[in-house]
Parts: sequence; structure tokens; C-alpha cells
Amino acid sequence: MENPCMNALPLTMTSSQKQVTVCIFGTGDFGRSLGLKMLQCGHAVVYGSRNPQMSSLLPSGAEVLSYPEAAQKSDIIIVAIHRDHYNFFIDLTEVLNGKILVDVSNNLKINQYPESNAEYLAQLVPGAHVVKAFNTISAWALQSGALDASRQVFVCGNDTNAKHRVMDIVRTLGLTPLDRGALVAAKEIENYPLQLFPMWRFPLCLSAMLCIFFFFYCVIRDIIYPYVYKKEDNTFRLAISIPNRVFPITALVLLALVYLPGVIAAILQLYRGTKYFRFPDWLDHWMLCRKQLGLVALGFAFLHVIYTLVIPIRYYVRWRLRNITVTQAINKKDDPFSISLAWLSDSYVSLGILGFFLFLLLGITSLPSVSNMVNWREFRFVQSKLGYLTLTLCTAHTLVYGGKRFLTPSALRWYLPSAYILALIAPCTVLVVKFILIMPCIDKTLTRIRQGWEKNSKSSKPLLFRKSDVSNKAECTWASEI
Amino acid sequence: MENPCMNALPLTMTSSQKQVTVCIFGTGDFGRSLGLKMLQCGHAVVYGSRNPQMSSLLPSGAEVLSYPEAAQKSDIIIVAIHRDHYNFFIDLTEVLNGKILVDVSNNLKINQYPESNAEYLAQLVPGAHVVKAFNTISAWALQSGALDASRQVFVCGNDTNAKHRVMDIVRTLGLTPLDRGALVAAKEIENYPLQLFPMWRFPLCLSAMLCIFFFFYCVIRDIIYPYVYKKEDNTFRLAISIPNRVFPITALVLLALVYLPGVIAAILQLYRGTKYFRFPDWLDHWMLCRKQLGLVALGFAFLHVIYTLVIPIRYYVRWRLRNITVTQAINKKDDPFSISLAWLSDSYVSLGILGFFLFLLLGITSLPSVSNMVNWREFRFVQSKLGYLTLTLCTAHTLVYGGKRFLTPSALRWYLPSAYILALIAPCTVLVVKFILIMPCIDKTLTRIRQGWEKNSKSSKPLLFRKSDVSNKAECTWASEI
Amino acid sequence: MENPCMNALPLTMTSSQKQVTVCIFGTGDFGRSLGLKMLQCGHAVVYGSRNPQMSSLLPSGAEVLSYPEAAQKSDIIIVAIHRDHYNFFIDLTEVLNGKILVDVSNNLKINQYPESNAEYLAQLVPGAHVVKAFNTISAWALQSGALDASRQVFVCGNDTNAKHRVMDIVRTLGLTPLDRGALVAAKEIENYPLQLFPMWRFPLCLSAMLCIFFFFYCVIRDIIYPYVYKKEDNTFRLAISIPNRVFPITALVLLALVYLPGVIAAILQLYRGTKYFRFPDWLDHWMLCRKQLGLVALGFAFLHVIYTLVIPIRYYVRWRLRNITVTQAINKKDDPFSISLAWLSDSYVSLGILGFFLFLLLGITSLPSVSNMVNWREFRFVQSKLGYLTLTLCTAHTLVYGGKRFLTPSALRWYLPSAYILALIAPCTVLVVKFILIMPCIDKTLTRIRQGWEKNSKSSKPLLFRKSDVSNKAECTWASEI
Repeated sequence: MENPCMNALPLTMTSSQKQVTVCIFGTGDFGRSLGLKMLQCGHAVVYGSRNPQMSSLLPSGAEVLSYPEAAQKSDIIIVAIHRDHYNFFIDLTEVLNGKILVDVSNNLKINQYPESNAEYLAQLVPGAHVVKAFNTISAWALQSGALDASRQVFVCGNDTNAKHRVMDIVRTLGLTPLDRGALVAAKEIENYPLQLFPMWRFPLCLSAMLCIFFFFYCVIRDIIYPYVYKKEDNTFRLAISIPNRVFPITALVLLALVYLPGVIAAILQLYRGTKYFRFPDWLDHWMLCRKQLGLVALGFAFLHVIYTLVIPIRYYVRWRLRNITVTQAINKKDDPFSISLAWLSDSYVSLGILGFFLFLLLGITSLPSVSNMVNWREFRFVQSKLGYLTLTLCTAHTLVYGGKRFLTPSALRWYLPSAYILALIAPCTVLVVKFILIMPCIDKTLTRIRQGWEKNSKSSKPLLFRKSDVSNKAECTWASEI
Repeated sequence: MENPCMNALPLTMTSSQKQVTVCIFGTGDFGRSLGLKMLQCGHAVVYGSRNPQMSSLLPSGAEVLSYPEAAQKSDIIIVAIHRDHYNFFIDLTEVLNGKILVDVSNNLKINQYPESNAEYLAQLVPGAHVVKAFNTISAWALQSGALDASRQVFVCGNDTNAKHRVMDIVRTLGLTPLDRGALVAAKEIENYPLQLFPMWRFPLCLSAMLCIFFFFYCVIRDIIYPYVYKKEDNTFRLAISIPNRVFPITALVLLALVYLPGVIAAILQLYRGTKYFRFPDWLDHWMLCRKQLGLVALGFAFLHVIYTLVIPIRYYVRWRLRNITVTQAINKKDDPFSISLAWLSDSYVSLGILGFFLFLLLGITSLPSVSNMVNWREFRFVQSKLGYLTLTLCTAHTLVYGGKRFLTPSALRWYLPSAYILALIAPCTVLVVKFILIMPCIDKTLTRIRQGWEKNSKSSKPLLFRKSDVSNKAECTWASEI
Repeated sequence: MENPCMNALPLTMTSSQKQVTVCIFGTGDFGRSLGLKMLQCGHAVVYGSRNPQMSSLLPSGAEVLSYPEAAQKSDIIIVAIHRDHYNFFIDLTEVLNGKILVDVSNNLKINQYPESNAEYLAQLVPGAHVVKAFNTISAWALQSGALDASRQVFVCGNDTNAKHRVMDIVRTLGLTPLDRGALVAAKEIENYPLQLFPMWRFPLCLSAMLCIFFFFYCVIRDIIYPYVYKKEDNTFRLAISIPNRVFPITALVLLALVYLPGVIAAILQLYRGTKYFRFPDWLDHWMLCRKQLGLVALGFAFLHVIYTLVIPIRYYVRWRLRNITVTQAINKKDDPFSISLAWLSDSYVSLGILGFFLFLLLGITSLPSVSNMVNWREFRFVQSKLGYLTLTLCTAHTLVYGGKRFLTPSALRWYLPSAYILALIAPCTVLVVKFILIMPCIDKTLTRIRQGWEKNSKSSKPLLFRKSDVSNKAECTWASEI
């Protein structure tokens, strides 16, 4: 739903509407931008400033007063001041008693101060109701109206009424308030706008490293080796042939790495005989970025698909096919049809297509709005069953690609095997270990552990009211897989 | 927004924060997992148990007391006990007076008991405020922190304050509370985690059946027939050629079945002369899973597209093209360019691409987050207008594919026509009937019926305040299409 | 979460549940549909009508009374009456005192009346709590249960309790209530269902115009010109060749137009030396539909990709390649391999693939559910950095496509250059100006302006509490780009 204040078309302006008077402390950029926006949306705005007569650049229509005077004009005071200057609030505690103080400040670094700015403000003015809001919106965006990104404003505060009044103001500005609970959440809300894809860093670095490694590996085998031995100039392969070798390999290795931590965790649980322990930090972190790893792998798989589909358009391929045909026509040699080659080529391609299709499905179900629609049981089904099927199909695709020339010594160049053989190590390991783990005897123990059973405990005691005994039978069906 | 409690990185831990004390009744797996999570997020946790001294495996830092002692330590009591043991609450009614009881239980089957567990609990302890929550989260997920799936916790309860306090706790655990209203909704919330794609079952079964039927149909025509008559071994066609015939056929039939129920409903309404009756159950169910039918069809269409695009890469195709060229070169025969063939081939491909593109658009608008952004009028426009355009384009694509050989007797093998001819029956029927329905005279009657007019009623009476008379003029524009 | 009332399967019907009694004023289509739905979901329904004994067609199970009698039966009264008849409420003010009046009405045109229907109702019955709701749901959808579109019901009202009670009823019907704040929002909510893609109109018109222009341009150069001079019949090119020239050109021009307003805005800001002024209306509107422009461009790019990938399947292409090969075989002429051609062809394709891949990423991040997950900093990073990279790659793709024949006089036909040369004007302009703008000296001034600095102001005054001074250092990193 587009709010009239956002798209600023004269047709839908509601400025004629009577809205609440809002007081803004601070005449910096954010204060001015927010004030302008509020004026546009029908609010009356009063600025509080240390030097009211010296404040310039304020939006026309807004009053400027000293802090105490401004505070008396409104119940709701927006504090657009840097935390370092909060100490002047000590003199205003009486005036601000019972008022709603909206802290909009941000910091320069994550966790810069021991407590959040909003909690600090609440300590300084104990009589006021402090609400944290607006800090996730940029001044520039408010100014330009170009809020194509998130319109979400995280709001938190200890007083429910105060929070709801601030949320109503947020709504009048065409933004979407999201209640984040009590003021304790302020720290998190203040850290939020400073993040830059924290969960994506590891997957992206890892895939970049894999790409670079396999790129140079392929360059050595496919460009330098022929140049040294046959004086062939194959540099044009850098544009398509080599990326189309590096991308699928990276995709397959990353996909295997999505499922590897689950397998490691299962082995750890079997070894320790309990699920009630913390995984090592590296494993924890790895498990938490599996979704991102999988999406990066999907990106590489997508590139591989398009790079493969353009093959017949390439000049080199057309030239080579033409040459083969011409040679054949000149020599009048017969080229018999090989059914086994047709089978190999078609099944290799078909496995790849099906693998990619399932991979895309996995990607779509990881879209936030889709994964919010499925329950845990469904999510487990998709991510675990379909995920392993995808990994199996993609591994089979690579194995069949190798086909007959798999591990023939002639494929070695400078003792280096083809790159795709290296790529098979991780997925094959995962699939073999997974196959062992789902064998009935091991699976049964693992399922019991994941239902709360412990190897070394005296849990034969009759714990009469164990929810797990009964209701976990249902749960285990979807919790038995990571 | 990632909550610090979720990704458990030391940097963002807020465990130092002071949070509410929570009491948990029951020391089973779910109770222990939830307690551990709460401790990690800064809550104090007190367990209530029948045999406090015999309870093992509890997270360190949590106290264990008897039920009445534990209940006195906190306002909020989480009931992680199986419903069968709820009867002991009868002895605790006094202690629990005014407290918030959070029912987290699940059942083993949908609608296992006449009333929901939470309502049953509310009957047992009338003085307490019962809130249903947390049942959609798995113990394993809480334990491992691997909440990549839905973080939504459905909350319902009759007391608003109690509900809001529970929602605040949900937020501190890094989960998203969703208010589902009064305690009546508990039954639905308890059934939710037991579902496994209920709306997808019919579409998937139907498409599997269609696939199998057309697969064997094609195998008979394309593999067994040539083998019997010409001793040709065409088995390699199983990998790509036959799937690429089965998938588009299934996609087209499923797409037609998306629009068939709407057409049937319109005929039923015309026949009965009113819209105020219930459709037969099968039609109701069919109409409700049209979206899923369409998405399955889109999946098959996508597979068809990729299977078609890889054609020039296949060994068989390259071999065949080479052989034709070589034969032509040896015979020095001229191959004149046929403009009509070029037109047929290009328009066939072009129609298919445009149809697939619109189909993708339909798929994208059915994403929950996208369809939430459009209003009814826009949704109707996309799904009805664009939908029929897609069906028309895809049907035309299939018709032009047939081209000149459509219904020539030589195409029959064992009296079986080509599979694509069978595929055309459903979409052509839908398009013809739809074309009749949108003819002005019929469309006018249908529109009146859908605005509330009834053939057999004496509605000539002056119902002075009929909203429909005036405001439905606007509505009919977007309600005139199913 | 599927609500039982929606999919109406007997298994999950909760009609046995005791729900609130609801009174509905008005027996028109919407009133009847809503009443039927409420009866199905377990509510008791009482209709209010001017002529109770003459009302027909009402759902069985509902009582029909006169207005005052019906009003006394329930706290919640749904007003399903057209605004023109609201004046009879004047006689009911006493009976309705303290009751909740739910206004569900819609208008025929956007902003038809000076104040919203709900506010008008609130003026007529000052003692009642007026809540706006249900107007975004169509009667037909309620009737058929086919709510595959948005289930969102926007709710607004001045009394929080009244609003929450209405939201609870909305939830029992299987719909999702969305709190839109106070009754002031009613106007916006009433306008909402009347919109038909307001933000998409300009982008779609613009792209249609571009398509038509380039289509005729290509028809003149590629079909009419050869026909006039060589009597060649190239009409079959209308199906694929010409669309595959028009679509990429339109995509590239639209993509450039996404970034052009940002560049213009930067120049305007530099020229005026301040950010505190309103952009001209056309620029404002242009900036607000950049997302839609980009998505339309992505659609054309997608079509271009598929049209390109089907090239080797086309009859014309196969015929031409075969002819070249046959001629070569007959003449026994050698065709030497050209490394520079291989480089050109491969890098051209590779640049296009990478550009399309990044373009797709941009499209995915503009999905509402994805863009809600990223903060401003991340959004800026993706849309600005990745966006310009995409534009650069796609422009390079077009430049390399031209390759050696770029601007050779032989490519002119009737003095018309190739269409792709026209397409390069807009993106090259944007890239050149952008390159100038990011040069350190200019970028520094621009950044200062966007932090609130003004060229002509006496802002050297010590504004002690300027939030911008400190905290904008963080902000500028993500606000320095539009």
C-alpha cells in the first residue's frame, strides 16, 4: 500500500489532515529532514534548540524555541541529537516528566557503548517514556522520498502506550512500524543499520577462494600446458570455457559444504552420545550460514547453466563443428551412430537439468516470504530430502560427465587430474557418510539422541511428565534431519 | 533483522541484559531446550518438576523446584507437559490464579481431541490467563540455533496483556511473534505444525498421473513402435526426447485445469441463476488449489524450456545435423530456403517464449510477498487477463508446432495420434467455452448474478439501502472474473 | 497458515466454536456475503434492515430486524450501506452510543468525497467508535472462498480497543488484519482498492513507446531496405530476429533511465548547492518509479536471453550454417581459425551473461520480502554499486557486440546507423557523467551537500548539537549514492 506522503503526488496529499504536534530536539540534518517530512504529512513541528535564534536551514512552517519551551508544546519529543550531548537532559528532567522521548540516534561502530543510546537516555530522564525508533531510516531517504528500500521502522520501548503513539506517527509518514518489544532491544536496533551482510561474508570469501584456486588450476592445465607442449594459443578460452569449468565446480563444492556441517554434527552427537552440548564455534557459525552458502552455490550453478546453453552460439564451437563436417565430407568417411555415446550425453545433460531444477526450488523456498508460509515439518522435508536429492543428482551429473575418460592416465597433464575430479571429493564424501548415517541401526541411535536421550545418563528413572516421550514421536519425524 | 540470540556470535550476545524470570513446568526435551535458549538470552529459568531431586539433564544455571514452589517464582509459566498429564493442574488452581500459563504442546494427529489443548488447560485453571505459543518451533531448532526456516511463533490468548508479555519473551529469543487473536484460534495453531503441504497433494498427484500416462504413451509411439517395425534402438530417447515431450504436455494440461474450474463455476451459476449456493465439494477444493496447480505447471514448463535449449548440445542432434550436411555435400544437392518453414519455426518458438515469459510473471505475482503488495483489482487483472493470455499463447505454440503435419494420417502409429494432439483437448475446450462466456449477452447476465442478482427472486422490491446497487458497479469490474 | 474457514474442508471446520454475535446493517451483496462467511466461521449474525419483512436472499441462520432492534443485539455493527444513505444514522445516535461501527464502504473514484466515508460516519455518530475495515476484500472472494490473492484487511480507527476487537473478528474469518493507525488513514484505505498499478503506468508506457520506435526502425533497416534493393523477402525475421534486436535495446535504454534521474539530481544539487529544496515534479515522479523501470528492463533482458539461446534451434540458422558448410566442403576451401574473432565472440557473450546475472540479482533484491531483510546500508550497496556494475557490463556487452564493424560507413542503410548504436547513447551518457561525479573533488562537495551542508548559508556558526556532524559520518557512506 503506497502512502500518499511517500509518492507525493498532489492527488493523494493528505496535508489538509489534522495531525499531532511533534517536538524535535536538534536541528542537524536528520532533525531537519524528519521535520520536513512531518510537516509534509500534516504534523505541526516545533524545534528545540540551544540557540533558537541562530538556527538556520530549518524547514519553513516549523517553530524554533529553546529546549524547555519546545518540550512544553508537545507530548512527543524526538531526540535528534548525538549521544555525547545527552547530558544537558539532566536539567530538563522536570519538564520532560511523563513525556515520550523518541531516541533516533545511531552510532559509528557496532557495540560502541556498553549500553544502548536509548537505555542511556532512559537512565538520564527516568520520568520520561523512552522509545527507540526511526534510526534505521536515512535522512537522505526521508528527504528525497526515494524509499524504495525497506520502509520498516523498528520500534521498542517499555511503555506500551508511548510505543503505540510513536507507531501511529510512523504510519502517518508512510513507513511500517515493527514492534520489537521492550527497550532492551534498543542495542540490537542500534547495531542493525551498521551491518553490511554479516552472514554473507564467509560464503562469499570461501567461494571467491575456490574460484581463484580452480581458475588457476584450469589455466595451468588448459592454457599453459598446451602452450608449452604444442605452442597452441588457447587464451580465448579465458572468456567462456574456463569460467564454465570453474563455476560448476565451485557450485558443487559449495553445495557439498552446505550438507557437510550437518553430517559432522551428527557424528559429533553420536560420539558424545548426547545433544545437550554446544557445538564448537566454527561448526555453529558454519551451520548458521548454510543458507547463504547454498544461495551462492545456486548463483554459480545458474551461471554454469547459461554458459553451457550459449555453447552452440560461440564462434569457436561453430568453427570446430564446421571443420569436422567439412573434413568428413571431403574424406567421405562414414560416422557411425554410437548409442552408448548418445546415452551418456543425454543422461549427463538430463541429470544436470533435473539437479538444477531442484536446486532452484530450494532457492525459491529460501525466499523469506515463502519460508514463512511453510511449517517446520515442510521446511525440513524440502531442505533435507530435496537437498540431498539435489546433491545426489548434481554429483551424478559430474560423474557421468567424466564418463569413460574418468581417471584414464591420458587425462593427466603434469600429473594434474581434470578439475572436475577434485570437485567430486567433497560431495562424494558427504553422500557416503550420509548413506552410513541413515542405515537403520545408526539412524535409530541418532534419532533417540535428538529426542533428548543421553548415552551416559541414568534416564531410566521414571520422569512421569516427560513431554518428549509422547509428543516427540511426532517431532522426531521432522527433527531427525539437520 | 538477525537477533543476537540466534547467531550466537560473542560480539552481539546480550546475555548481560536483565530479562524476566520464567518458570517451566516439565523437564522433557522441549522444556530443556526452551530453558537453555532462555538462559542464553538472559532470562532466569526455574523448572517445576514432580520429583525435583530426580530431574537430570537440565541446563546448568536453572533451578529445579516442585510445581507449587516453582510457580511462585514467576508470573509466566510455560507448560511443557503432555496434555494427558494436565489433570494435576487441578491441585494447583489457587497457586496459578492470575498467572500466565503458556501452552506449548502439540498433538500427534490433526484434530486429535475435541477441543484444543490450550482451551482444555484454560478450563482446568479458570483463574489463569492461558496463552498458546511456541508449538510451531521444534526443540531441535531451538537447541541447534539453526532457525533458517520460519521464525514465526503464532500466539493466541484471551487476555491482551498476557499475550503481549508472552510476545515480548518470544521477541527476546530472536523469534517473530504473530498475534492470531483469541484462544479459539489455538486448535488451528495446534494443527498447523502437523500439516505436510495439504494444498499441494492433489496437484502433485494429478501431475504425476499425467506424466506417467503421457510417458508410456510416448514410449509406445517413439520407442516400441520403431523397434517393432524398424528394429531401431531408440532407448536413448528416454533421457531427453521423451521427457521433453511429456513435460510440455503436462504443463499445458495443468494450465488448462487451472482455468477449467472457473469456467465450470460460471456455467453452474448461469444454470442456477444465483451465486448464493455452495459449489460442490470437489469444485470448491479444485478452485482452492488452482494456485498450486499453476505453479506445478510452471515447473514443468521451465523444465521444457531448458530441455529445449540444450537440444543443440546433444550428441544425437549434432550427429544427425552433421550427417545431413555431409550427405548434402557429397551429393552436391541444393537445399532451397523455404520461407514458410522459416515462418512456422520462428513463430512457433516465439509464441512459446512469450507464453513462458507471461507464465513466469504469473508465478512471480503468486509469491506471497508480491501478492500482498497488489490489491484485488490488480490481482484479478494479472491472474485473469494475463492468465488467459498465457493459456492462449501456449495453446497457439502447440498448434503451430503441429503445423502442417497436424492430423495427417501418416502421423498415426498403431492408431495413436501424436501426444501433443491429446494435450490440446483440455486447453482448447477451456478457451472455446471462455470465449462463449465473454460474449456480451452472456457476460451481462453473469455479471449481474455475481453482483447478487438472482433469477428466481422477487428482487424487484425496493430494497432501499442496497449497497450493491451503487458501490458494486466498481466491484463488478474486478469480480466479474474468477 | 491456512485458516479452516478459508479452505472449507469438513475436517477443519470450527463452526462448532462459539464466536461473537455480529450485527450487519444493509442486506446488499456485500452484507450478505460477509454475513454468510461469518455464519460459516461460527459467528451469530443479525441483519439490520429498513424493511425487515421484505428482505430476501439473506443467508439462512441469520436474523433480520429493524435497525434499532438489530443494533441492540450486538456491540459490533458492520455498516454495509452506501455512503449516500448514511444520513439515517442521525436518528440512531442514541442506540449506537459506545458501539463499534465498522465502515466497509468503497467509492467509485479515487478521492470522490472531501473526507473519507469512515470519517463522515464518525461525524454523524460521534458517540460510536468507528473502525474502517474489510473494504479491500471483494464480496465475490468472500463468497467463493477463493482468496488466493491478498488476505490482508487494512484496519484503522481512533479507539484501540474497538480496533483490536475488529481485528480479532478479521482473524476468525481467516484474513490477516493490518493495523494502519488512526481513522485519518481511512481515506488512503478507501482509495487503495481503486488503484490499478499506479506506479507501473509510466514505465510500461515508456517501454511500449521505445519498443514501437525501435521495432519500426529495425523493420525499415532489415526488411524494407533489403526488399527495395535486393528484392529479398525477409518478413520471417519479424518473429525472432527483430524482437531479439528490439528487446535488448529497450532493456539497455530503460536500465540507463533508471540511473539517469540520480545523476540529474546530483547535478541539480551541485548547481543549487543545497539538498533542502524539492526536485521538480517530473524528476520526483521519475525517481519514484525507478524500481518499476528496472523491473520492466529486466523483463526485456530476460526475453533477450531466451531469444538468443534459441538461435541454434531455428530453421533459418540451421539452413544457413548447413549452406556455409556445404559450400566450403564443395570448394574444399580452408577456413582458418581467427583468435581475435574467438575472443570477440566469447567476451561479448560472457559480458552479457555476467550483466544479466547481476541484473537478476538486482531484481531478486527488489522483491518485497528480500528488501525488507536488508538494511539501508546493504540496500544502497546492492542497488548502487551492483546497479552501476550491471549497467557497465551491459553497455560493454553492446559495445563489444559492435566490435569491428562499429561505425563503419557500410553499416549505414538510408543513412540510418544500426539500432544498437542509438541504444548506446543513454547508457554511455549516464556512465560518463557518473564517472565525472565520482571524481574526488566533485564527490567531496556532493557528500557534504547530502550531509546537510549548504553553499550559501552562514553555517559556520557553532550549532553545538548538530547530529549530522558526528553521526552522519556513518550515514554518508550509504547516503552518498542515490
